[in-house]
Amino acid sequence: MHFAVKAIDWKDNILTLLDQRALPHEQDYLACKTSEEVAAAIAAMVVRGAPAIAISAAFGMVLAAHAGEDLNQADAVLRNSRPTAVNLAWALDRLKPFWPQGYEALLQEALRIEQEDLEINKSIASKGAELLGPDCVVLTHCNTGSLATSGIGTALGIIRYAHAKQNIREVYASETRPWMQGARLTSWELMQEGIPVSLCTEAAVGHLMRSANISCVIVGADRVSANGDLANKIGTYNLAVLAKHHNIPFIAAVPLSTIDFQMLDGNGIEIEYRDSKEITHFREHAIAAEGVRAVNPAFDVTPASLIRYLVTEKGVIENPDSNKLSSLKEFLL
Amino acid sequence: MHFAVKAIDWKDNILTLLDQRALPHEQDYLACKTSEEVAAAIAAMVVRGAPAIAISAAFGMVLAAHAGEDLNQADAVLRNSRPTAVNLAWALDRLKPFWPQGYEALLQEALRIEQEDLEINKSIASKGAELLGPDCVVLTHCNTGSLATSGIGTALGIIRYAHAKQNIREVYASETRPWMQGARLTSWELMQEGIPVSLCTEAAVGHLMRSANISCVIVGADRVSANGDLANKIGTYNLAVLAKHHNIPFIAAVPLSTIDFQMLDGNGIEIEYRDSKEITHFREHAIAAEGVRAVNPAFDVTPASLIRYLVTEKGVIENPDSNKLSSLKEFLL
Repeated sequence: MHFAVKAIDWKDNILTLLDQRALPHEQDYLACKTSEEVAAAIAAMVVRGAPAIAISAAFGMVLAAHAGEDLNQADAVLRNSRPTAVNLAWALDRLKPFWPQGYEALLQEALRIEQEDLEINKSIASKGAELLGPDCVVLTHCNTGSLATSGIGTALGIIRYAHAKQNIREVYASETRPWMQGARLTSWELMQEGIPVSLCTEAAVGHLMRSANISCVIVGADRVSANGDLANKIGTYNLAVLAKHHNIPFIAAVPLSTIDFQMLDGNGIEIEYRDSKEITHFREHAIAAEGVRAVNPAFDVTPASLIRYLVTEKGVIENPDSNKLSSLKEFLL
Repeated sequence: MHFAVKAIDWKDNILTLLDQRALPHEQDYLACKTSEEVAAAIAAMVVRGAPAIAISAAFGMVLAAHAGEDLNQADAVLRNSRPTAVNLAWALDRLKPFWPQGYEALLQEALRIEQEDLEINKSIASKGAELLGPDCVVLTHCNTGSLATSGIGTALGIIRYAHAKQNIREVYASETRPWMQGARLTSWELMQEGIPVSLCTEAAVGHLMRSANISCVIVGADRVSANGDLANKIGTYNLAVLAKHHNIPFIAAVPLSTIDFQMLDGNGIEIEYRDSKEITHFREHAIAAEGVRAVNPAFDVTPASLIRYLVTEKGVIENPDSNKLSSLKEFLL
């Protein structure tokens, strides 16, 4: 299975990021040569998606070591670039034991994280696609594909594998206001692979569940707490409540690096609030009443009770809870 | 209670419509001199909102009579300008008995419809505001204010009256993709009157119900069937399901002219699907992957079972059903 687009490229001590703010209309690249540049790119969402952020941060530490930066300082700046996705901290934690060995050891570990992500994507895709029967109409949210990972993606990986098995009739991609990941990124990825996709607004998801024979909802995650509560892109919680109301399976594709066993439940997960201008403006055009306040949470929390399947690279958990999730601990490094 | 803006103005046989496509950044007006121009303005959403459409269509018939147009033809063109809101047909039905009497009689009836709408707004606002206790945080959707009616509005009328009683702490206005009625119109109307308003995306409504102490959801309607099912702006059904899940009262402000007693339940209500370009483009800018299909239902249907209160000018119906609604028939002309 191929994928046409690479969000993150490491070569000759330069981390090149495909600028996801300009996609799909422009394909710009940003070359990062310091950890601070990487942190700024993560904060500005040049690169986004929990696994892609983790890989970028790992290479940020390699850049810091290469330039002789203070590693404590670099680690802190990268760690604070965005608050919600735990993969970021997970990648930085993985690099820490290699600090004393320096640049080459850090580089090898960063490359391992990137390579592992490829394999994790495939494993999730394979296990998740087994949950999908023939002629599926899938509703997905935000972007969880090649642009959010180093490989075929998490939720989109499942859709890709199910499509390869000819089990996908249609994918509805919600546009994902305000950043339009669904409109700009997911639609684009799916169209490039010939997977049938229709865009919808977040407003229309309930209507589609009532009228369009949605088979399942598949999303990714930015952090899953020890009891299975899930933080993901704002709008995910709406989908989960509506899916429950319609008895439609709600499936989350979750690498183990997204599970935060230190966090007992979702109430502790920090929700990032971003600039209101993301809502009130399109580029420099005002699209709302001048001076109006806007509240812009970037994520929401879906309780485990609304999740039918958590698909990890180590197996599928049905109706997740603390006991079931703790069985995954054996796979942690 | 004042209102600063007039969506519809009739003078010297010209119907002047405030162009709601350009608001609030530009205040353009469109002068209609024929019924066809009025129908085109309704279809293009120069004027929108079920009561405002009804009033516009009524004046469209006056223009037809004034110009000596074929009234059957004018009626048909106006009636088909938009399919979902029943108020449009209701107003045209009210004018029909006056056809034989000609222009002056039609004009007087159109003016009566406009004047009655003012009074209906006030009655709904007064009855609805009694449902709201102190310190309310209200979530509303789309625009149901002065721009959607001839007066203070339906759902926004309730909010205005509750604010006058100092019972409103905050209004969350959902932006209402793709047309941005919440961002452009509702926010603007509320800010002009000093009513505290925050904009949110449709994606964020569930998160706000979980975290922002929402007291109630208040919306308008485009058509209510005899059993209380309600068609309204796309996204309303999401709000109703989420409100039920959170045990938050869901209130709909509904003039009697919005109730379609011929329609047994919501399954029969025609849902308008609009051009996908409304979703894929912002003005002429593409904001989605090039060539992507988009599904653009303009309305959805909320079953009566999810509605806590229907507020009409003749009284409030709790937990609406066919029996309770039929009690309103005595008030019909």
